[in-house]
Amino acid sequence: MHKELVENIGEKELIKRLAKFMPKNQVEDDCAFIQTNNNNLLINTDALVENIHFNEETITPIDLGWKSVASNISDLLSSGSKKTIGITISLIIPSNTEWEWVEKLYKGINQALDYFGGVIIGGDCSAGKEKVISITAVGIQGDIKLRRNACKPGEIILTTGTHGLSKLGLMIKNKTKFEKNIFLTKKLTNQSLQHFCRPKLNTDFLKVLLKARSNKKITKIGCTDSSDGLFQALEDLSIASNCKAIIDYEKIPKHKDWPEGEEWDKYYFFGGEDYQLIFSLPKKWANSVSNLDKNIKQIGYFTKGEIGVEFKNCKNNKLLSSKPFKHF
Amino acid sequence: MHKELVENIGEKELIKRLAKFMPKNQVEDDCAFIQTNNNNLLINTDALVENIHFNEETITPIDLGWKSVASNISDLLSSGSKKTIGITISLIIPSNTEWEWVEKLYKGINQALDYFGGVIIGGDCSAGKEKVISITAVGIQGDIKLRRNACKPGEIILTTGTHGLSKLGLMIKNKTKFEKNIFLTKKLTNQSLQHFCRPKLNTDFLKVLLKARSNKKITKIGCTDSSDGLFQALEDLSIASNCKAIIDYEKIPKHKDWPEGEEWDKYYFFGGEDYQLIFSLPKKWANSVSNLDKNIKQIGYFTKGEIGVEFKNCKNNKLLSSKPFKHF
Repeated sequence: MHKELVENIGEKELIKRLAKFMPKNQVEDDCAFIQTNNNNLLINTDALVENIHFNEETITPIDLGWKSVASNISDLLSSGSKKTIGITISLIIPSNTEWEWVEKLYKGINQALDYFGGVIIGGDCSAGKEKVISITAVGIQGDIKLRRNACKPGEIILTTGTHGLSKLGLMIKNKTKFEKNIFLTKKLTNQSLQHFCRPKLNTDFLKVLLKARSNKKITKIGCTDSSDGLFQALEDLSIASNCKAIIDYEKIPKHKDWPEGEEWDKYYFFGGEDYQLIFSLPKKWANSVSNLDKNIKQIGYFTKGEIGVEFKNCKNNKLLSSKPFKHF
Repeated sequence: MHKELVENIGEKELIKRLAKFMPKNQVEDDCAFIQTNNNNLLINTDALVENIHFNEETITPIDLGWKSVASNISDLLSSGSKKTIGITISLIIPSNTEWEWVEKLYKGINQALDYFGGVIIGGDCSAGKEKVISITAVGIQGDIKLRRNACKPGEIILTTGTHGLSKLGLMIKNKTKFEKNIFLTKKLTNQSLQHFCRPKLNTDFLKVLLKARSNKKITKIGCTDSSDGLFQALEDLSIASNCKAIIDYEKIPKHKDWPEGEEWDKYYFFGGEDYQLIFSLPKKWANSVSNLDKNIKQIGYFTKGEIGVEFKNCKNNKLLSSKPFKHF
């Protein structure tokens, strides 16, 4: 079958084709124009590099497109964005990339934007040795500012959901051999692949927070997403807010078929790319929130003391000596 | 001398060091927060890839930092930005890059931001095979919208300045051998190197336009920047506005020491990276503008007809068969 390479398309034609993935009212120009209607904005930039963040063997271009959008919008949500305005895409691809690959990537990007909200508002494209997708997303700041540095001692730590599934999905894609006594149920396997390839986001999170809030004077709370793993999220909150996270291992929500063992704890806490929101609230608000949304679980609390993460009710002593994934 | 490589710094420390280039009130978080104060915004993304847009032999990291900012802000200015709010930086670097290189790049970035306005508001950093600097700049839309598609038949075409200097600067850096009869004056050489390494921008352009405007009903005019060369800018305006550009070769402003010849015309029209603004205005407004700012020159006009660029008073027939620089 004849494969069309981007180097044979020509730059002008390539830009024209990419412009077709933008809404019709978004004219190709030097800049995108954003009507803010007196809203304050949130802006986030994330780069995905081939063989660092993804590779051709484990993810299709259409899923990669979806995921690159999800990863950016997750950051907007973790800052309290109430609506995504749009994204700009900086795409670097080797000149022998097939046009079909680019088309599928953009198809996945638009599927995610249709699902999570937002449109492509601009971007840039160039040749390069390896694929890089750098996305900048712009969202509208909602009524509560979610910030890493706003956790307070005494507050309850919550998570919007379970962890480790995306990491397991990646390992299944990589055909990782697990220990002999490990049995993965069909349900766990399918859900893990789903989490890895097509992560969903907690788009209603801000609404739940607002609905459960009784004290309207509180307009800022501590929050981040767990894109770099649950442990990293807790550590980031602890450092930025200058307090200590105490996590009750027994309260951690796990998939009901999640295997036990030290290795599986590692996947759970350091896996990354689950895009849950990790946040802290005063006790009353925390209780209302977890009553309102049964997926949201209380997993510990912040306290005064040395910054860092401490586990209680945890038999796995090796857990804290593990290291998060490094991009260098 | 001991060189510190980024792979030996560690990711956390690297992020900490990069955060030092941001203003102190800009807390490292998942997103940057932009208070819009009811202004509409302009947003632009540009990627620079090593060995495509730059290489170590021709530009220092500090100049590269300056230039990557200038290139983005030029796009904001060409859309009518009255103020740059800030930029996010997506930086991809091989893990054996020296920290000193990164430090100098960011120094150049901040020098340009100090000069042109704006601050670093966020970004991302990852390892990769080759260096990529992708910048997204956010500016405030001023009182006149400058858009590629707003040129009209009958309007005068203007340029904020001369072209070709940046290309000549690059050729001097590349130790290009020119024909024997070509003599480059010291002034031309120095100014060309300056244009290539440390391009200036027409930051007062919008003010001049507003000052010269007699009919306040006109709030949108045709404009783009010449970052991909004067010819490309004219062609882009022609295509987006669906009219024909007629350029009077004799009116083209050249550096007084610019050599003559077909090759030199090519450098002039196709060189790129001069960051002038190319725009069109009704005759009266055009005259006021070029009276107010002596660097702004009238070089032709738009007319009904097939889209494209036509020269008059030009003896160089080969000119139009030249091709702009390709990124693929």
